[in-house]
Parts: sequence; C-alpha cells; structure tokens
Amino acid sequence: MGVCHLTVRQAGPYSLAMSSSFGQQFRITTWGESHGGGVGVVIDGCPPGLVIDEDEIQADLDRRRPGASPLTSQRNEPDRIRILSGVFEGKSLGTPICMMVENKDARAKDYEPFKHLYRPSHADYTYDAKFGIRNWMGGGRASARETIGRVAAGAVARKLLRDAWGIEIVAYVTKVHEIEVEIDPDTVTAEGVRGSEVCCPDHEAGRRMVDLIKKVRKEGDSVGGVLCCVARGVPPGFGAPVFDKLEADLARAMLSIPATKGFEIGSGFAGTDLKGSEHNDLFESRDGKIRTKTNRSGGIQGGISNGENITMRIAFKPTATIAKKQATVTDKGEPAEIAPKGRHDPCVLPRAVPIVEAMTALVLADHHLRQRAIRD
Amino acid sequence: MGVCHLTVRQAGPYSLAMSSSFGQQFRITTWGESHGGGVGVVIDGCPPGLVIDEDEIQADLDRRRPGASPLTSQRNEPDRIRILSGVFEGKSLGTPICMMVENKDARAKDYEPFKHLYRPSHADYTYDAKFGIRNWMGGGRASARETIGRVAAGAVARKLLRDAWGIEIVAYVTKVHEIEVEIDPDTVTAEGVRGSEVCCPDHEAGRRMVDLIKKVRKEGDSVGGVLCCVARGVPPGFGAPVFDKLEADLARAMLSIPATKGFEIGSGFAGTDLKGSEHNDLFESRDGKIRTKTNRSGGIQGGISNGENITMRIAFKPTATIAKKQATVTDKGEPAEIAPKGRHDPCVLPRAVPIVEAMTALVLADHHLRQRAIRD
Amino acid sequence: MGVCHLTVRQAGPYSLAMSSSFGQQFRITTWGESHGGGVGVVIDGCPPGLVIDEDEIQADLDRRRPGASPLTSQRNEPDRIRILSGVFEGKSLGTPICMMVENKDARAKDYEPFKHLYRPSHADYTYDAKFGIRNWMGGGRASARETIGRVAAGAVARKLLRDAWGIEIVAYVTKVHEIEVEIDPDTVTAEGVRGSEVCCPDHEAGRRMVDLIKKVRKEGDSVGGVLCCVARGVPPGFGAPVFDKLEADLARAMLSIPATKGFEIGSGFAGTDLKGSEHNDLFESRDGKIRTKTNRSGGIQGGISNGENITMRIAFKPTATIAKKQATVTDKGEPAEIAPKGRHDPCVLPRAVPIVEAMTALVLADHHLRQRAIRD
Amino acid sequence: MGVCHLTVRQAGPYSLAMSSSFGQQFRITTWGESHGGGVGVVIDGCPPGLVIDEDEIQADLDRRRPGASPLTSQRNEPDRIRILSGVFEGKSLGTPICMMVENKDARAKDYEPFKHLYRPSHADYTYDAKFGIRNWMGGGRASARETIGRVAAGAVARKLLRDAWGIEIVAYVTKVHEIEVEIDPDTVTAEGVRGSEVCCPDHEAGRRMVDLIKKVRKEGDSVGGVLCCVARGVPPGFGAPVFDKLEADLARAMLSIPATKGFEIGSGFAGTDLKGSEHNDLFESRDGKIRTKTNRSGGIQGGISNGENITMRIAFKPTATIAKKQATVTDKGEPAEIAPKGRHDPCVLPRAVPIVEAMTALVLADHHLRQRAIRD
Repeated sequence: MGVCHLTVRQAGPYSLAMSSSFGQQFRITTWGESHGGGVGVVIDGCPPGLVIDEDEIQADLDRRRPGASPLTSQRNEPDRIRILSGVFEGKSLGTPICMMVENKDARAKDYEPFKHLYRPSHADYTYDAKFGIRNWMGGGRASARETIGRVAAGAVARKLLRDAWGIEIVAYVTKVHEIEVEIDPDTVTAEGVRGSEVCCPDHEAGRRMVDLIKKVRKEGDSVGGVLCCVARGVPPGFGAPVFDKLEADLARAMLSIPATKGFEIGSGFAGTDLKGSEHNDLFESRDGKIRTKTNRSGGIQGGISNGENITMRIAFKPTATIAKKQATVTDKGEPAEIAPKGRHDPCVLPRAVPIVEAMTALVLADHHLRQRAIRD
Repeated sequence: MGVCHLTVRQAGPYSLAMSSSFGQQFRITTWGESHGGGVGVVIDGCPPGLVIDEDEIQADLDRRRPGASPLTSQRNEPDRIRILSGVFEGKSLGTPICMMVENKDARAKDYEPFKHLYRPSHADYTYDAKFGIRNWMGGGRASARETIGRVAAGAVARKLLRDAWGIEIVAYVTKVHEIEVEIDPDTVTAEGVRGSEVCCPDHEAGRRMVDLIKKVRKEGDSVGGVLCCVARGVPPGFGAPVFDKLEADLARAMLSIPATKGFEIGSGFAGTDLKGSEHNDLFESRDGKIRTKTNRSGGIQGGISNGENITMRIAFKPTATIAKKQATVTDKGEPAEIAPKGRHDPCVLPRAVPIVEAMTALVLADHHLRQRAIRD
Repeated sequence: MGVCHLTVRQAGPYSLAMSSSFGQQFRITTWGESHGGGVGVVIDGCPPGLVIDEDEIQADLDRRRPGASPLTSQRNEPDRIRILSGVFEGKSLGTPICMMVENKDARAKDYEPFKHLYRPSHADYTYDAKFGIRNWMGGGRASARETIGRVAAGAVARKLLRDAWGIEIVAYVTKVHEIEVEIDPDTVTAEGVRGSEVCCPDHEAGRRMVDLIKKVRKEGDSVGGVLCCVARGVPPGFGAPVFDKLEADLARAMLSIPATKGFEIGSGFAGTDLKGSEHNDLFESRDGKIRTKTNRSGGIQGGISNGENITMRIAFKPTATIAKKQATVTDKGEPAEIAPKGRHDPCVLPRAVPIVEAMTALVLADHHLRQRAIRD
Repeated sequence: MGVCHLTVRQAGPYSLAMSSSFGQQFRITTWGESHGGGVGVVIDGCPPGLVIDEDEIQADLDRRRPGASPLTSQRNEPDRIRILSGVFEGKSLGTPICMMVENKDARAKDYEPFKHLYRPSHADYTYDAKFGIRNWMGGGRASARETIGRVAAGAVARKLLRDAWGIEIVAYVTKVHEIEVEIDPDTVTAEGVRGSEVCCPDHEAGRRMVDLIKKVRKEGDSVGGVLCCVARGVPPGFGAPVFDKLEADLARAMLSIPATKGFEIGSGFAGTDLKGSEHNDLFESRDGKIRTKTNRSGGIQGGISNGENITMRIAFKPTATIAKKQATVTDKGEPAEIAPKGRHDPCVLPRAVPIVEAMTALVLADHHLRQRAIRD
C-alpha cells in the first residue's frame, strides 16, 4: 500500500540503443542492416540552396563499394544512391535529406552456419548480450554496409565545406601490416591517392602493399594498417572549448568506424618523446596572417582550429573475418569451430579511405554550422 | 592583420532548420515533402524484441489517409507503408526502424498557378523568408503529408505502451465550428469514435457535424474545432521535473501538429473560474492505491503522472485552404488574388484524430523509456 | 550459461530525471531546491561580447521575488544574484555563465508537519512515486523558487534580443478568477503593467483584482487567472518546420511553468468559432514589407514567425496551497487532514509575469541563434 | 521589397560555443574560468537515493590539486568542494547536483605581461579568433582548473558504478618522456598507483621519472608521456552500435582533456603489426561465462563491452607553458618574445590521473544509465 513504484513488466531483455545520430547542427541519422530492405541516412540541418550533385555522391560511394577490386570483398552491390527528400530542382531545401541504397546481393544462406556461433572479434556476442536478438544474416547493424549512409552524407558535407571555405579533405594509406611510408600531409593530393589501388600516394610502396594483401588473402588471413587524413583550408575558429573540442569530435568520429583501434591528432604518441621547448609551435606572421612555424598541434589548439592543416592518424585492426579455422563457442557457450566462407576484405584500409574522409567532413560541417557569421 | 575572424562567404540565404526529430529515448526523425520521392520516419531507440505488426501500422495510416471519405481531401494515395530496416523476423532489433510511404498521386500542376503567390495563413511566405527556397509543389515540408511518419511511428509507440503497461489512448472530436458536445474521457471507447464518420463518439452530434462540414465545403469554406484525447493506464511516475514536465512535452507535441492553436491539460482555461478549494484534487485510498477524488489536474501533478487518466483538449483552426477567392500578394509583394483548385479538407479534425493519438503515444513512449525499472 | 544479460542490482527506486535543461543553442540548466544551499542557472551558448548588466538581472528577479507585496507570499528573500563565471570586465565571454542566489529565509520547521502528508494538487505524491525520496522541506525542486534561474537567464536572453533585433516582450494579467479584461497586445506597455500591483494594464480592473485577491486570502483560499504575453519586433524567419515550430517551443516553455494548465497562440480556442474565410490572415504590402491585415495566426505561420506580433495566452490554476482544511492521505495511504501554515501566494499571477517573459525570451533567443546570418 | 531575409546586426564577433555538457543520461555541465568567482559542475541525471560522500569527492579533488607536490604547479588552492543542490540528508534526490569550488589563489598580475601575447601551443590565439574576447587572466576556460568540475562529477559517477556493478577504474602513468614501463592492467592496484609520487605503479621507474621531471623543471622545460587506464567489472552490454560505440565515447572523453594528443583502445596502433589470425580474441567458456582467451579488443567489440577489462592508452604532450624564452607574436601579429613566470607543471601526467579516471567513470555511468534492466 502507499506509493506505487514502477516495476518491470517486460518479459525479455531490454536495452536502450539510440545511437545512430551524429552531429549537432549538421546531424545525420543512419539506418539499415546488411540484410534487409536497404541502408540509408537522413541529414537534418543541411542549409538550403546547396547544389546537390547525385553523381558526386555516387562517386564517393563507388570508392567504398565492395567488388570493385581484387583486394576487397566480392559482394557485388551496385549501391545506387536514391535521394528521397529534401532536394528540389537540384538544390537542398533546408529540410531533411533522406538517401537510400537498396540491398541487392545479400546472401543470407552464407551466414546460416554461423547462426548460433560467435565469430571471434565480431559483434555477434555483444549484440546478443545487449539486445537478446540479432539479425544473424551478416553483420546486421555492425556491418560495414552501415557506412554507406555516412559516405553519402559526407559527400554533401564536403560540398558544403568546399563551397563555403574551399576546404579540402584527403585520406590516404600509410601503413599496411609491416609496410609503412611517410607522406607529407601538406602536399598529398586526392589524385595521388586515387592513382593507387590501395590508396597509398607512394605508388611503389602501394604496389608492395597490394602484393602483401594478395598473399595474405591466399593464406586465408587478413591485415590492418594506418590511415592518415588531412583537412586543408579550415579557417581559425572551428571547434569549441571543453567537451566539443575539434579533436575530441574527430576522435569520436574515427573510433565510431568499424575496426578502428587508435587515433592521433598532430604529433600523437610520438609527441611524448619531445620536450616542451621542442614540441611547442611558435607563432609568426606570414602573408599577413598569424601562423605557426611548425604544426605539432595538428591544426588545433585548445580544441579550436588555428588555420594550419588538420592532421590525423587512425589505426585499423586486421579484419576479424578470416578464412582460417578458429576456435569459438556457440550462443549456449559450447565449444565450436568456425571457418567463414562469406565474402570479406583481407584488408579494409582502401575502402576505409572515403569513410574517414566522410567522417572528417561531417565533423567539420557541423562545426562550420556552429559558427555565427560576422560582417567584415 | 592580426586575428582572422570568421566571415560569411555564402552568397545566398542561410538558415539552420534542424527540427525534424522528436523524443529523447524513443526518438523519431521524419523526412519527406508532399511532392518528391516519398515521406517517412526513422525511429531510433525502439527496444528490441517488440512484435512489429505492419497491418496495425497500416490501419492507423488508413485512418489519416485522404480520399477515404467525402469529408476529406480527394487526393488519392494508397499510403502503403514499407519497413526498410530494424525489424527481423517480425520483431524489432533495437536498431533504427526506417519506414516509408511513396508519393503517388502528386499533382504538381495544381500548384503551378500559386508558384509565386503566398496562400493566406499558409507557410509559403515564412518558408521563403527563412529558407529563400521552397518546394512550391504543394505544402512541401509543411504539408500534412509529413504526419504520415508520425502516425507510423506512433503505432509502434502505442504497441510498446500497450505491451508494457496496458496503456490505451483515445482521441475524439468534441467540437466542429459551433457544434459542441461533452464526452466523458473515462468511458469513451475507440469503437465509439471509429463508429462516427467525423470521429465524434456522440453519434447524433457527429451526424450534425458531418452535415455542417458538407455544407461548408459547398460554400468553398472551411471549419475548425476541438479534439480531446485521453490516455488511460499510465502509471504514476511518467514525466520529469522542471522543463520535461509531461504536460510540457504534450503541449509541444500538440502544437507541432499543423493547424493547432491551443492546448489544455485537465481543467485548462476553465479551471481559472474556480478557487483553490474547489480546484484541488483531494487524495484518498481506493482499491489499495493512492488516488484523487477528482481529476482537475488531468492526471499530471508537478509534471509527473499520478495514475489518473491524462486528459487534454486541442484547438484546430479552420483549414487555411479554401476555394473562395482571397486577396494576397506575390513573392514580390504585388497585390494578387488567389482561389486554390487543389484537393483539400474542409475540416481537418477527423484526420487529425490518429495524429493526436500518435503524438500522445510518442510522448508517453519516450517517458516510459526514461524510467528505470526496479524489482518488486 | 551463455549470454549474460544485464540484471538490476540496485536496491532502491531508480528513475531517470534529466530534465533541467532548456534550449538548443541558448541552453540553460537550472539547479537548486527551495531549501538547500541555493538556486541557480548555467547558460551555455550565450554569444561573446554581450554587455551583462547585473542590475538589469536583479530588477527582473525583484519582480518575481516574494515578500514584495501584500498579494504575495511573505517569505522574505533578498534574492541577490551572484555571477560566478562567463563574464569578464562586464561582457560575456562566450563560455558558460553560472549565476546563483542563496537560500536565506528557509523555514524547514514550517514543513515538518507535512513530512508524511501529501498536499492536494502538489507534487509531493508524484515525486515520491518517481524518486522514492523527496526534500520535504518545502516544494524542493517543484518549488517556484526554481524559476529564479529562469528569470536570471531570461534577463540575459532579453538583452541579447533587444540588442540584436530590438525585440520587446511584455506579459500582463488579463484575468483573475471572474474579473477579466481585454487588452490590445499591439499597444500595451511595460510601464502600464508595472504601474499595477497586480500587473494588469487596465488599472481600474487591476484594483478590483487586488481587492478580490485580498478577500480570497482572508478566506484562506486562492484564485487563478490568465496571463497574456506579446513579443514585438521579431523578424520573419524565427522558428522551424515540424517539431521545433515556434509555437510548439513556446507551448512547452509555458506548460513547464508551475501551475499552468493551458496555452493559446493567436486566435486559440476562440478561433474554432470562425470559418476559414473569416480566420485567414490576408497578405498585403505595407511600408515596403509583406504584412498581414489581421493577426489571428499570432505572428507565426507554419511554425515560423511572419514579422507580426507574437501573441499568447496562458492559464494559471488557483494556487494549490490554501489555508483551509482539506482531506488527504499520508505516504502510507492513511486518511489525514491538512491545513498548511506556510507562507504562500493567494494568486501567483503577478509573480508569474517576469517568468512568462523570461521563458518567451529564452525560446526566442534560442531561435535567434538558430538563424544563420546573411549579407544584405 | 518582398521577402525580408535575416541580416546580421551584431557589431562584434559572434560565435556559438555551447560545448560544456557531456553525457546523455548522466549529463554534466561544467562552468567557470581559472580567474573569476569559481569553477563547478551541474550533474543532471544522477539517480535518486545514491549516498553522496563529500569526503570521497574531496579526496579525488585533492589528487588533482596543484601545490601538493614539488612536481606540480605551485598555485596553492585549497579546492574545497561545496555541494549546493540535489543532495538531501546525505543522499541524491534525482535532481541536479551543483557543486562548486571557489577561486582563491588567483594571481591575475602574473598574466598581465601576456595580455597581448599569444603563448605558443596555448589556446590564446584560437580563443581570440573564435570569440573576439578572452579572459587573459590565466587560461580562462582553457585552464586545467575547468577539470575540477569533471573530477567532482566523476567521483559521483564512480560511486554509482561501484554500487551498481562493483566497477573499478584505475589510471596510471607508464611513460614520462623517454622512461617507459609495461604494467599489467589486470593486476594494477589503486594503492600501487597512489604509492608513487608520479602515479607509476612500478615504483623504481617512478623514482626515475620524478628525477627526470625535477631536472626538466630546472631547465625551464617540460615533458609529456602516456597514461593507461583500466576499467574492471564492466558487464557485457555497455555501449551502443554505430556512433555511440563505447570506444568512440571514451576517445572523445580523453581527447577533451587538455594536452591529449592520442588515444588507443586495446591493441591500438601496435595491433596493426599483427595478422587477423594473431589478433582475433577467441571465445571460450570460463566459470560458466562466455569469455575471450586474449583481450586485444580491449574489452569492447562492435562498440559494446564484452565483459573483459576495458584498457586504454592516452598520450599527453609536454606542457606548453615553459620558463624558457620563446618567439611569438602579439595579438596584432607583431614579433615578440615570451618567458612566462606563472606557476606551472613541468609534467601534467600525475595530476591527469584522477581526470582520466573521472572521464572514464562519466562515460561508463552514462552507458550504465542507458541500459534497461531486466529481471533475472
């Protein structure tokens, strides 16, 4: 008798999962599983009057599409984008832009044997633990297919940034397993990256990376590596104090990409080898602007862009899905063996390039819209 | 020289419009214009394991569909719902549920004459003022078609509330222009409402309302009215102090529906005619529970549900689109006349019933998920 | 064995209450109970460089302060505001502004007798139902003292709106119990309002209202009424489509104020008596601007301001606390009687005036900051 | 003539800075500058009934306090915490908890010479670029003093996690400049860490680190290093798919701490040296639970905790403030020299330990509250 406290009436497991939105002002919400009607994205907050070029969006999607190269998964998806709303006579309306790609080459049968097995270093177990239900036909929501919506939205964000500030974003591969190169972020070009099958601007190293990936694939194994990304042309003032520091938002963006294990801004972990007197970026006047002589800060100070190039490094682990036989357990905890036959990437790095660029663009577009403009 | 402040480079108008999401835990994002690929919704935060019945969603959509009765717009849309994601083998996955309805019977040509005219008491002028661009083929984002996504999501929310708490939500028409009736919110039934073409549980009054609406349509005019809504079975504890008071969220939800002009909870404006000693709801013990003798609070005290029925009234203005000739201006400010020939509702009340129920369900589902459960 | 689902380990009641923030861009978070260290607010998102005048903030607080008039509660609080952060040399820094008022004249002993009683139409029961714990020394978080933070933040918001657009906000009392007057929102002045003890710009009616309130107080009873509020000078373009319609945000803001039961924008419930041809606001050109001949829309169309005056009505119920003896129950559900001796307002309307103005300013400041500026 | 577009009327610079809140369900908002009334935090969303121990909070603050060791800044602040709201008779009410620390030993005069100088690798320039105004008396909002609010809130979060799940969080120093040690995250103890002046559980290495820091201080220079952090006892199911992956939230949390340049979860960058067959964490049954044989995933798979220990590494750059003379520019861009005399840390690592623990606790508490409980 007395106060009636709330009591659980649900019979089954019950979890709060709301987590498919990113950004405060240029906010995207992705949706879709690897197997189902399709995957897509809603952009809420895109300014009106932006020229939206479907071909440009498609071009970015084609770069992340599987089946395009011997290095990637053989799943053959045309991944044609369809714009459902928010665009009128070629221009954004300022209302939500919904874009979708249908799932075509889904082969649920490939996954049937793993219906009750937990693939090592995959999300099968944790999704079951959290949700008590799982779309076992592929990776479901944890599939890389989810990133299609990010790349489509990222293409719109890049257009916005290019039109407003001339900002240019280039991601590139600098390490595949034991092969590593140094690339100058100030001079690397998108053309140089796209000229390499593995997206390494050092084409000779790129060829060695390709050979390595092919060899690893034959062994039924996989490799990881490091992606770098530079944003050039970001004016001083993007970012915010305390929790929405530009590097904090970028770190979150990168660690939200499947298979990422590390993030560095500017000097990163290597910066801990220097003393303050060696690490500090001294100010100077150059071309009538306040600039820094060096850029160990990676273009961000106090969480706010300082006008220098924004430079990042992101670590990607070796693909979890390998053809080799591995020990695991069933969803009842019984010992089992697994040797996936599905179509997978022996190295995700090349396909991750447009995803990293998209996430960078989404963070910057959001902070671009968080600026209030002033007159000259 | 010196600090480089940000400067606007955009040539055109530029507005932040992000506003298509509703809810904190059961969050929906609607998308789509009245003319374009289609309209839809993404639900992020629906718990996993909920049985999703497409027919139940469709049934709610059918209630708001135009073309179903002589009282409503003659636009003939089948409005078939398609679930694109988040549901697997008939159950929710806990991942975003995207649902869409294609636009079929769009007749852009009907709107061609109004391309440069501002329809009185419509959103044409304000959208132009805000965005500088407008989908003139119908109401665009301001069209009642946007509410399709709300109704579809609302059907899922109602299922959740029914399964978890047995909550029942019934909306009904109590006033059309000068015809007004009193209905007891404690006893009104969904069947009684659906048995009336105009959704008035007093069927005799409902028939008079129908006659009035038909007469007004013939005159090329329109009427408004009042909708009531009751939520029964809400346990004590839904809602929150200060800004997320349950009645505050309900007020926002209702005023976000096109054509609404007023909102009351419990005693509403009429409560100001009473003194405190007449208005207070005295507590008593009933059936082993703490209850109130009266319910002028409308089931909410201090922003939190007290276990009594939640009762609301919502005012809908007469439809802005009428066939009569009206004075207006062009988008250059020149005097003009307008007499729309499009397909419109002489009274939105009947079609608003499932929308009000949906918004009520969305607010309650959100607060349901904002509770932490405890053991008995 | 197998998947480890989450299980509740908490012994006690457990509720999610996060609800003390308001606004997206000009976001306030209020904190504090009626009895405790104090009450206050944090503003996050105030633009830098705004001149912050402590006296101006204090002046608004003085208008809501109890003990200032025979009409209001006799709790005697100096309510001196202290700015703790975010202001430097008289100007806002663009960082969070924390302001606080200490609790001085708290008399916990007055509340001791009601420790285990539920005061009728108060939040005692619902807070207990939700939280399982309650600061019984006064209204705790449900106390009107919480609104101090809102009024302080609202003063900053009004300054911002006045500086940026010349926006002026005036709230005033038009009804106390059975005494009601009509006031023209286009011409009402702040001076006229402040010239009345009861904040009624019709001073003759105001005097009658004062007499009525004094009489009711003597009877140990209370009365409610209606507050109107007008915002003049809001340019076209404030607000947003769908869920963040300006009237939806205003409705939520008003229904979040303690004791409110109803909200109307423009024609409100009375608008349902008109036909579309009578209700529509026709456009015309006036002084080189697009204007409407009438203003039944209340300055908002499609959720976006149209440049006309924004007009609202808000219903306040009679104060729940009365001196008369009332039946109630204890927190164990046992029958009891209650007759509070505390210091209370027989009518909250006059003190609600600065609160309604503050909430209006907070909504408008938020939408002001959600605009992107353009060059001429 | 025609549509009235919005135009900027502000004379000065104008930026949106709202960024002082962190968390969705256990949401904190910090406020305060290094010089001003004080610094503090508001926690919104702390469940009711949690025992709040002021001494426990104070103990964490004491660990981050300057002036406590020869290794840290000599600013002498007692940093006494004061709880202003949300706690009643020693327990949380479920309402906002505001806590504050007054600024006592502020020496604005120390900063006077730098009023118009941009300190290298500090936030002076970027704050000026963004806000056009800056509290030059110290670091303002960019000061490490802002983290006081985080540490206070983190202490409450840790209590919540310990009570609900027995979760234990330990951070520790593993690298200072060129001195690096390996520590086993499964066995490291809080006592071991607190037994070292430099918070290195390998006390011998810790002594060498202390010597190095003292030497560097004498040289007027500074050093950085690496902090590790482990969370033990986190059950499977914390975290969420896509953007709110647990590692993404942790990455953002860590990169929001001043002076951080890198983040790793589990195997991090070193994981890229392994092949998939070497890197995958194989599942097995252990003690009736599903566990992994290795933990290269760092306790998180698919963004969701899998029950293993959560392990992170965070890179801190050498302190930007050094006593050595450095070239810089004035706020007019003129060449200048700077040699700060203020009180600064030659190495921030030891004081960063409670901050990293606090941020970890805040992320986990948030995800704890984002779980819906179920019956056994």
